[in-house]
Amino acid sequence: MTTEYRVERDTFGELQVPSNVYWGAQTQRSLQNFKIGGVRERMPPALIKSFGTLKKAAAKANMSYGILDKKIGDAIVQAADEVISGKLNDHFPLVIWQTGSGTQTHMNVNEVLSNRAIEILGGELGSKTPVHPNDHVNMGQSSNDSFPTAMHIAAVVEIAEQLIPALTELRDAIQAKSEEFKDIIKIGRTHLQDATPLTLGQEFSGYVQQLTYGIERVQGTVPRLSRLAQGGTAVGTGLNSRVGFDVKIAETVSEITGLRFETAPNKFEALAANDAVVECSGALNTIAVSLMKIANDIRFLGSGPRCGLGELSLPENEPGSSIMPGKVNPTQCEAMTMVCAQVMGNATTISVAGSYGQFELNVFKPVMIANLLQSINLVADASRSFTKNCVIGIIANRERINKIMNESLMLVTALNPKIGYDSAAACAKKAHKEGTTLKEAAISLGLLTEEQFDEWVRPEDMIGPK
Amino acid sequence: MTTEYRVERDTFGELQVPSNVYWGAQTQRSLQNFKIGGVRERMPPALIKSFGTLKKAAAKANMSYGILDKKIGDAIVQAADEVISGKLNDHFPLVIWQTGSGTQTHMNVNEVLSNRAIEILGGELGSKTPVHPNDHVNMGQSSNDSFPTAMHIAAVVEIAEQLIPALTELRDAIQAKSEEFKDIIKIGRTHLQDATPLTLGQEFSGYVQQLTYGIERVQGTVPRLSRLAQGGTAVGTGLNSRVGFDVKIAETVSEITGLRFETAPNKFEALAANDAVVECSGALNTIAVSLMKIANDIRFLGSGPRCGLGELSLPENEPGSSIMPGKVNPTQCEAMTMVCAQVMGNATTISVAGSYGQFELNVFKPVMIANLLQSINLVADASRSFTKNCVIGIIANRERINKIMNESLMLVTALNPKIGYDSAAACAKKAHKEGTTLKEAAISLGLLTEEQFDEWVRPEDMIGPK
Amino acid sequence: MTTEYRVERDTFGELQVPSNVYWGAQTQRSLQNFKIGGVRERMPPALIKSFGTLKKAAAKANMSYGILDKKIGDAIVQAADEVISGKLNDHFPLVIWQTGSGTQTHMNVNEVLSNRAIEILGGELGSKTPVHPNDHVNMGQSSNDSFPTAMHIAAVVEIAEQLIPALTELRDAIQAKSEEFKDIIKIGRTHLQDATPLTLGQEFSGYVQQLTYGIERVQGTVPRLSRLAQGGTAVGTGLNSRVGFDVKIAETVSEITGLRFETAPNKFEALAANDAVVECSGALNTIAVSLMKIANDIRFLGSGPRCGLGELSLPENEPGSSIMPGKVNPTQCEAMTMVCAQVMGNATTISVAGSYGQFELNVFKPVMIANLLQSINLVADASRSFTKNCVIGIIANRERINKIMNESLMLVTALNPKIGYDSAAACAKKAHKEGTTLKEAAISLGLLTEEQFDEWVRPEDMIGPK
Amino acid sequence: MTTEYRVERDTFGELQVPSNVYWGAQTQRSLQNFKIGGVRERMPPALIKSFGTLKKAAAKANMSYGILDKKIGDAIVQAADEVISGKLNDHFPLVIWQTGSGTQTHMNVNEVLSNRAIEILGGELGSKTPVHPNDHVNMGQSSNDSFPTAMHIAAVVEIAEQLIPALTELRDAIQAKSEEFKDIIKIGRTHLQDATPLTLGQEFSGYVQQLTYGIERVQGTVPRLSRLAQGGTAVGTGLNSRVGFDVKIAETVSEITGLRFETAPNKFEALAANDAVVECSGALNTIAVSLMKIANDIRFLGSGPRCGLGELSLPENEPGSSIMPGKVNPTQCEAMTMVCAQVMGNATTISVAGSYGQFELNVFKPVMIANLLQSINLVADASRSFTKNCVIGIIANRERINKIMNESLMLVTALNPKIGYDSAAACAKKAHKEGTTLKEAAISLGLLTEEQFDEWVRPEDMIGPK
Repeated sequence: MTTEYRVERDTFGELQVPSNVYWGAQTQRSLQNFKIGGVRERMPPALIKSFGTLKKAAAKANMSYGILDKKIGDAIVQAADEVISGKLNDHFPLVIWQTGSGTQTHMNVNEVLSNRAIEILGGELGSKTPVHPNDHVNMGQSSNDSFPTAMHIAAVVEIAEQLIPALTELRDAIQAKSEEFKDIIKIGRTHLQDATPLTLGQEFSGYVQQLTYGIERVQGTVPRLSRLAQGGTAVGTGLNSRVGFDVKIAETVSEITGLRFETAPNKFEALAANDAVVECSGALNTIAVSLMKIANDIRFLGSGPRCGLGELSLPENEPGSSIMPGKVNPTQCEAMTMVCAQVMGNATTISVAGSYGQFELNVFKPVMIANLLQSINLVADASRSFTKNCVIGIIANRERINKIMNESLMLVTALNPKIGYDSAAACAKKAHKEGTTLKEAAISLGLLTEEQFDEWVRPEDMIGPK
Repeated sequence: MTTEYRVERDTFGELQVPSNVYWGAQTQRSLQNFKIGGVRERMPPALIKSFGTLKKAAAKANMSYGILDKKIGDAIVQAADEVISGKLNDHFPLVIWQTGSGTQTHMNVNEVLSNRAIEILGGELGSKTPVHPNDHVNMGQSSNDSFPTAMHIAAVVEIAEQLIPALTELRDAIQAKSEEFKDIIKIGRTHLQDATPLTLGQEFSGYVQQLTYGIERVQGTVPRLSRLAQGGTAVGTGLNSRVGFDVKIAETVSEITGLRFETAPNKFEALAANDAVVECSGALNTIAVSLMKIANDIRFLGSGPRCGLGELSLPENEPGSSIMPGKVNPTQCEAMTMVCAQVMGNATTISVAGSYGQFELNVFKPVMIANLLQSINLVADASRSFTKNCVIGIIANRERINKIMNESLMLVTALNPKIGYDSAAACAKKAHKEGTTLKEAAISLGLLTEEQFDEWVRPEDMIGPK
Repeated sequence: MTTEYRVERDTFGELQVPSNVYWGAQTQRSLQNFKIGGVRERMPPALIKSFGTLKKAAAKANMSYGILDKKIGDAIVQAADEVISGKLNDHFPLVIWQTGSGTQTHMNVNEVLSNRAIEILGGELGSKTPVHPNDHVNMGQSSNDSFPTAMHIAAVVEIAEQLIPALTELRDAIQAKSEEFKDIIKIGRTHLQDATPLTLGQEFSGYVQQLTYGIERVQGTVPRLSRLAQGGTAVGTGLNSRVGFDVKIAETVSEITGLRFETAPNKFEALAANDAVVECSGALNTIAVSLMKIANDIRFLGSGPRCGLGELSLPENEPGSSIMPGKVNPTQCEAMTMVCAQVMGNATTISVAGSYGQFELNVFKPVMIANLLQSINLVADASRSFTKNCVIGIIANRERINKIMNESLMLVTALNPKIGYDSAAACAKKAHKEGTTLKEAAISLGLLTEEQFDEWVRPEDMIGPK
Repeated sequence: MTTEYRVERDTFGELQVPSNVYWGAQTQRSLQNFKIGGVRERMPPALIKSFGTLKKAAAKANMSYGILDKKIGDAIVQAADEVISGKLNDHFPLVIWQTGSGTQTHMNVNEVLSNRAIEILGGELGSKTPVHPNDHVNMGQSSNDSFPTAMHIAAVVEIAEQLIPALTELRDAIQAKSEEFKDIIKIGRTHLQDATPLTLGQEFSGYVQQLTYGIERVQGTVPRLSRLAQGGTAVGTGLNSRVGFDVKIAETVSEITGLRFETAPNKFEALAANDAVVECSGALNTIAVSLMKIANDIRFLGSGPRCGLGELSLPENEPGSSIMPGKVNPTQCEAMTMVCAQVMGNATTISVAGSYGQFELNVFKPVMIANLLQSINLVADASRSFTKNCVIGIIANRERINKIMNESLMLVTALNPKIGYDSAAACAKKAHKEGTTLKEAAISLGLLTEEQFDEWVRPEDMIGPK
């Protein structure tokens, strides 16, 4: 970034940091000690943003107690707003693969806020005056309660602002297709084999139900995710924090985000375990399982154009091949199903990490939140992309659907009450053996007339209970 | 079992079955075609029991419609009660690894019920008269809706009757210990390193909270698990079932089990996806993650007796070694943590299986329910064993706890406001370097008197916010 | 089993055991303390058998040193042979969910062997005279080296005797089909969309290669699995064992089994880690991934009969439906794919368990070996069932394969060098738009004659490089 | 990047691309259609580099056949060298979440190379003259064989250049510690409980063995990873490629990389399955399991400084706490164990993705290689960081180790042959009950003299077989 440096210091001594960054000594030390993964593996921006929210809330709470000078507090709030806006993202260079408490990223936040607040107040970067990263920015806080608080804020915010809207949009788009296709009767398939008919709208209604449940599932994890650890400080006891600080933080975070947060009823659990993240990941995993099924069905129904099932036509978004016109690759389905595989694996990562809490602290926090946020954001993005670039453009190939449905031997079921099971079976067996239609077989067996067949064998009477 | 046989038949022809079993031709055919895993891999008894419940409900519903003869229906109900009781378990020999719709086990149920009902009514086994496995026992039903219905009933019943009581019992036992230990101040540990103190009761309260949440988590999945697929028949349309049959089945199953069930709002989803099983498995996985943490903590706190942490003494249940008295192996923790690993792996199995639904049917149903029931029952059994054979007998080694807590250098924190951070740090550094107590270091530095140290450094003032 | 009891004792005191069993006090104590899962969850028989092998080898080694009386040693060998034969399986009632070192099952083995040897020598069960479970049967051994030794023996034996033959049989059956189908040209499918042609034999040759690699993969793990921990005793140092005992055990086990075993080069690793089990599970997971692909392809290619891809006909093994003749469910594919999901989940269980070794011992041994053996045996059994009941009976629907291949628009590729890309594209677009054949489109566009088309568009020229 | 644009085109039409980038229309289209994840989720640079290698090899091969003009070919080679060097990395903006064949990234490569080659030759960007992305850069290639070829090259290169050296360095560093600690006798711990002694060097030798095996494990997967798909073109048949092109590519890639590659013996498997990636991921998962154990042991042995096990002192790299001097957090262990959790989850992602191949192509290729490369690189980086910042600075706390070892009751084992088991047990029980040393208990019981105790109880005689 620069070849000029200034000196920053922590309790281990002095360090040079680039002169054009806001971070300080502890961040720099982490950069040097954890050369793992590089830029691609930085802490997720949504977590940094949540730290902005948290630090803003803490400054406000501390000002309200009168223990934080208003001028300093206001500068911290202004700096925190800049963190929230994302404009300082380049000043958070640390990777996920650092201390498992996230202390280094937490100190990165404290350092950036104090230096930026110092700058706002006209001071010198690195001087820790008049805004000290620990004494002022971190007043009444510990990494051990702050980091899990920021984790929960980030997850709840991304779920509310990204995931739920994106899933709802997808659900609604499929719902619209379900209604559009409500009169298209098609062959059903169980065990991949021809079965009794249903409407294409009914088939799509199953996907709608999966997504409706998926939204409920992830929302069902929010009550526990919205409980904040702040106030537990180092080990959960709240040593060095004020009584009521925990409640005040939850209230202020609620105000800032417009989402409901509460203080965790038990801070020991809130530091030592990150079970709410595991739980939420389980819901995301279930959504991934649902989306895998939906996207797989759609690409199989759209397979062809001549040698597949061919019931649907999916939008053509890119050249599929320079050789063959008509080749549409279901690329949006492919992106979606790859995302689903990633979310399923992330669930394993999060479970393993969550299982390894020890005594008063789980030290797998960064890997847990990085995976959770990746899952949330990938599902949200992929859902929007899938909706826009695939679902809304799906066309039913009515002629093809009708043709193969009518060729199906299972329509023989309708003849059971008319000519008896054995005669119906004889029709079907003959048609199967000779490769004819059911009608041809039935007529050639002398079991009914063409008129009778047309009257009795009506797929539209086979799509609901009597 | 026998060397005598009778002849049974299905649409593929005749087969010999042992004369002393109730199963019929389709069961026998599956036995011959799926020699995978043998006796250890049979369908779980809880699923068979739920099929008994379902078939009893179906017979009652069909009698109420007047479409099932009362004498036949009553015999089916009587036979179903025997299935529910478990006394016919030996007549369900099929393994999990069969058709993915579970049709063969479903037919096994139909065959056993019809043959037993025939026997009750004085008929001949295998005659299908006067009780036919398909026409009477399976009236208005299909494997594709019956099997997932039995899956959901089994899961909900085992959760209500086994899992929740066992987890509650464990939670309450740890809660009692938390209260028993509420005055024992001990060293906290973060990153495994000495940290500020908390009470042993506070530490255990975190476990209590984890289990309270765990119970909420699994209960949160029950609403969707208690939705029953019955009424969807072959592909979800309900073809060949009566309008209202679905609601009646859910009501009758509720009456029989004393638990609340409802009919699924969308039968296409209920056949094609088994997402509710994936969701429930996610909750169990979270509970496994919690229990792994709890059992690990307890065995580490009980490590020793001389060379470990030694804060707890766990009950001695078996000889640990023929060589060394005093060696207690934390065997209940070991069984529990092995169960947790299994549940975490079962979650992967269930997720993979759940993702592979195709069109109108997911054909991984047997593997999904077998894994879910194993997870439910192992967690329940292990929780009960852990409670009885470990938790209730845990003793706090108060002397040891107090000794190491008092040796800890982190108590220096209390001196910060009295002698200043730098002087406090000097005490701690000197004590660490020379291996002395903090008090010795502080006095030898002339920073305070013994009386002052005793007044100022009080762990009991460090276990909560101010 | 009985209502009569005899008294057995261990260092914790006396216990009643059923008079008709060979197990002793420590087994009985485990039965009482670990009521987790019941009969379905017993230690796998293959592990018990391997303990028979190991104890036979130990008795022989100890006799060769002259430290074990020949009469006693011979009785132990005879008893061990009975364990190997499986006839004493009912005397091993303990579940997987016990102590994580497997000590209780190990003592179960020692107790059964000593009591059976006592019986052989005319003594009284439970007397520990003249054959003591610890002093004689367990001479020079510890659970901590014996249990992992039995694990490795069991895995290596089951791989050699069950898995490799079953996979080879399946590979060879698919190879035979590949040759049978070598002249059947069919449509290729990428992204599920129609692509350039290949032969059905070529398609099946990919499956052959996957299985050939799979066999190599699992064989590649055997070198480390065949290293035995025996000789490390309690913590890996070999305290209380003789120099060379480790080598002698490996040699004797090799003789008994006819398979090559070696002593582990580092016993600390061999007790504290079970990485060879994790590695082998990874190979099985890869095989499961391969088999999932193969079985999925086969059932999709066999889907129909009228409304699917319909290229293959799979054997009809059971009634698919009482309604529709011709409905064949690909049930063997379903059993296979369910097994694959289980193996994939077992890999997670084994990985989690393997990661939790602590200091000198990993105490997740029972869950690891139970899952590994289940994976090995399920893949073996499912492969045999799939071969016999599906693969060898697969029939290619040549007419259908040929028909859709010829309808495919991608054959236009062959015209590029003859009439140019743009004209070829015009043919394909016209045919796609109007639903005609390529030939019809090309002729109607006046681009070539029927004769030219038939000469230039030859799928048989498109199935290899030039 | 710019507000100026030029026009590029593909078969779907024209598109504006920024005038300062080398990519073309198909890349731009993908950017617009796949807004999933953004910059953090771009295709891994190691894969792009491998594409550079592959395209260089293809240009050389095609020049050697005389079918690619030398001037054009040389320009492609020069451009490919720039891709290999990484200087064009900003021109590869596409994310992992695109088409599952990776076609869009493959076209991104073709477009960048053609435009850069055009520039070298003095032409106009976007003109496709004189270097066409398909006709020249992609001559004889298809995405379906090129993408898996680049995957394998990337994996093999990163294993050889990053992973193996890093693991070897770590193994050697632990080996050096094992030798340094070879005379330090310490307590052993099984089930976390005190057990018989071993040397600290022996304990570390177990870790050395785990890593030696780990290196073998990943190397064991390289033979199949080094088989290249190139030459299979669209479906594996090699249509439109020359006989021998496959072999030539493998040879040229071997020359460029200095690593051994071969052409895949069966191209159908090489396109339709990515099992070699799954296999390699299994080896990485096993390594993660090993590293989790090692890092966990080290941080537990270093726990304290006063209230933990305290046998090791780990290097102090950062301030652990502003409050307590002496608090060292084992942060390198934490980064390492988080990486291990990620690798374990990535293995699930890769397995799920690998299982979903369909017919002639697996379309989960990007997610598979992205996860594999992340696992390889994270393990490599974390191993180097762990070696440098932790392992080489580990100090054994000899005094503490010796003290607790001597206090241990298990040393009583040594008295068995001298005073008999019962008397030895009495000593141990008395010492345990009264909290005294073994020696005190033994002497007070009158069983031996102080001199005898000192002669008989010698830990240094307990660390090997006799």
